[in-house]
Amino acid sequence: MDDVHRRSTTMPVVTMIGGGQLARMTHQSAIELGQCLRVLASNTDDPAATVSADVVIGSHDSLDDLRRAAAGANALTFDHEGVPLAHLQALEAEGVTVHPPSKALHFAQDKLAMRTRLSALGLPVPDFVDLSGDRVAARAALREFGARHDWQIVVKAVRGGYDGRGVWLLDDEAAALAVIDGADDATQLMAEAKVPMRRELSALIARSPFGQGAAWPVVETIQRHGQCAVVLAPAPGLSAEVAERAQQMALRLADELGVVGVMAMELFETSDGELVVNELAMRPHNSGHWSMDGAITSQFEQHLRAVLDYPLGATDAVAGPVVMANVLGAAQAPSMSMDERIHHLMGRIPEAKIHLYGKSERPDRKVGHVNIVGVPGASIDEVRERAERAATWLSTATWTDGWDEHGE
Amino acid sequence: MDDVHRRSTTMPVVTMIGGGQLARMTHQSAIELGQCLRVLASNTDDPAATVSADVVIGSHDSLDDLRRAAAGANALTFDHEGVPLAHLQALEAEGVTVHPPSKALHFAQDKLAMRTRLSALGLPVPDFVDLSGDRVAARAALREFGARHDWQIVVKAVRGGYDGRGVWLLDDEAAALAVIDGADDATQLMAEAKVPMRRELSALIARSPFGQGAAWPVVETIQRHGQCAVVLAPAPGLSAEVAERAQQMALRLADELGVVGVMAMELFETSDGELVVNELAMRPHNSGHWSMDGAITSQFEQHLRAVLDYPLGATDAVAGPVVMANVLGAAQAPSMSMDERIHHLMGRIPEAKIHLYGKSERPDRKVGHVNIVGVPGASIDEVRERAERAATWLSTATWTDGWDEHGE
Repeated sequence: MDDVHRRSTTMPVVTMIGGGQLARMTHQSAIELGQCLRVLASNTDDPAATVSADVVIGSHDSLDDLRRAAAGANALTFDHEGVPLAHLQALEAEGVTVHPPSKALHFAQDKLAMRTRLSALGLPVPDFVDLSGDRVAARAALREFGARHDWQIVVKAVRGGYDGRGVWLLDDEAAALAVIDGADDATQLMAEAKVPMRRELSALIARSPFGQGAAWPVVETIQRHGQCAVVLAPAPGLSAEVAERAQQMALRLADELGVVGVMAMELFETSDGELVVNELAMRPHNSGHWSMDGAITSQFEQHLRAVLDYPLGATDAVAGPVVMANVLGAAQAPSMSMDERIHHLMGRIPEAKIHLYGKSERPDRKVGHVNIVGVPGASIDEVRERAERAATWLSTATWTDGWDEHGE
Repeated sequence: MDDVHRRSTTMPVVTMIGGGQLARMTHQSAIELGQCLRVLASNTDDPAATVSADVVIGSHDSLDDLRRAAAGANALTFDHEGVPLAHLQALEAEGVTVHPPSKALHFAQDKLAMRTRLSALGLPVPDFVDLSGDRVAARAALREFGARHDWQIVVKAVRGGYDGRGVWLLDDEAAALAVIDGADDATQLMAEAKVPMRRELSALIARSPFGQGAAWPVVETIQRHGQCAVVLAPAPGLSAEVAERAQQMALRLADELGVVGVMAMELFETSDGELVVNELAMRPHNSGHWSMDGAITSQFEQHLRAVLDYPLGATDAVAGPVVMANVLGAAQAPSMSMDERIHHLMGRIPEAKIHLYGKSERPDRKVGHVNIVGVPGASIDEVRERAERAATWLSTATWTDGWDEHGE
């Protein structure tokens, strides 16, 4: 190394537990900040493991693997909520900087604890009931709760559900009791009243250890088969007052719980225009993917800034309305390869921002997403049509508007 | 692997020769397209080698190393112009897809060939003279050329110069002859007439093997110490007619030479408003870094699209004017680490888009850049002030507006 070679303080290292698409996209932002994201991945062909230069192969269920991944890193964070809390507490006791900390992450892992805490904070949540305890007690509690809500209820696994798994939408007693009877002993359940709703919203925010908060515009999320399919940013027709209320709720909760990093608060906008909290995620979230192309600071860059206690970035939209549409594995194998589908999409919609996760295609599996950024003042319906047309094409090799690729 | 696991045709692999910042930033775009950029890097701590999962360590001067890097890749491309042409011809003969091809890259490697070819095509170039041959002949040719141009000339190395190296700006006979006398025998020289100019411009375009072309808005580039310091996108006050002429010249030249990938045509806008071609680069270029945050398709994504013969992406600006400012290593070590400087910058200019290359800081070395994207209709002077303030801060830990970090 020559004499004038002057190395700055080495850039910080963030470890992300989980090698999925959220880690993959966080790595893109790490590169910009002069870093390389370290990922703990289960397999060498996980989405993030195939693109990062710093990969630890191991399991998030193994404390030793977590220790290996954390060694020498400035902060440890997550692309999913599945790490056992006891392991995180052990790491914290050993001096590892865990963001979000276990005391906060607990509420993203345990829906019952989350509901109880939100309720205690006076935040709007649906009526809910704990169905833990023995089967007899659970059946009794469910009968009372169901009758009170005319059986318009949702039974949920307290832990581990995502993308529609661990959630049962019900409308009669027999079906509800069958969920309890069918659950194995290890599955703790709870029930919630269904909320008569107009639509679903998401308030995405970030919080730093210093306590700085930043909120992106509130978005509308559209679910299909229990998972996020389309995001409209900002939520069309949402009043500034309601949007700000949603942002304040999310920022306040993050502060109360000591969240560090990005947090998504999924909300119901009820039929009478009120807000009810549905779920929490303490990590970058599908409802924030639009920010990669549509906001000044993406959720992935912001998550890194937050966990490193850097000041947070501007969250304004860069231009007009943005629509994100997920690319899902199709029910039947498309008639051409993904590479060919990309080729056709680029030819037809040259402004589509394609994000692929390097995953194999299985039915309904999220394998990528497409963002379309509208010009200022653009109609969100028109932007949405292009985004959904693009994503459906990548999923299925069919055009929603009937365009015939072969010109026949 | 389970039965429903359905792998699409594997995504293509692009190999980039050179592990510098251009490869590093191309990898960010590769990730979005479902790929991982393979890089041939000299060292494991090269900017791209520290972030990509697919790194071949070797030299671009070794045909065997080039072969190892090319094995199994869909296309081979470059982050610099230094690969020996004979090696590329050998690879092409072996069936490797080299983009840009050797027949085109030749003109980016050899300034004399470039001048001669552009002149033959009727494109505007400064008057020039070949100074190869023995020293006596070269001195005679230089004397005749210098006298004709009143010694307002530039002597250049035909090969290998960049960022101000291999270029001598002269204004008298003795100094010009001293360059010839001081050059070693291996250095082929040429001379050009200085162009009385208003400013420098860059026309950045891309071309695919299919022959599709795409042009970004023409930008103004501001040089300091012989290298690019600031880019204003679009070039302020440039008439639509002149901008289109520059784009057409670049697109036409790319077509004539068979360029594939991104090409920058650096231009002088002369004092009387004409355009003269200065240099060519056949790769992503410093004058296109603004596109990472300010254009729908960045030059790095576009380069990948082009070398893979995908249709090209939209090149429109996303929002208002954009200014890119390079972060250069300072003459003297700044008073705080880069990590601390980032912290302060993020606090003061939360909308600054920071791009760091993972390089150690040496005087005048490009270690990163900052983009500021203005809102539509923003004043480019105001945007430029923020971009230069941000980049100078990262370089030197001093604020150009006299702001005192310590509040003293």
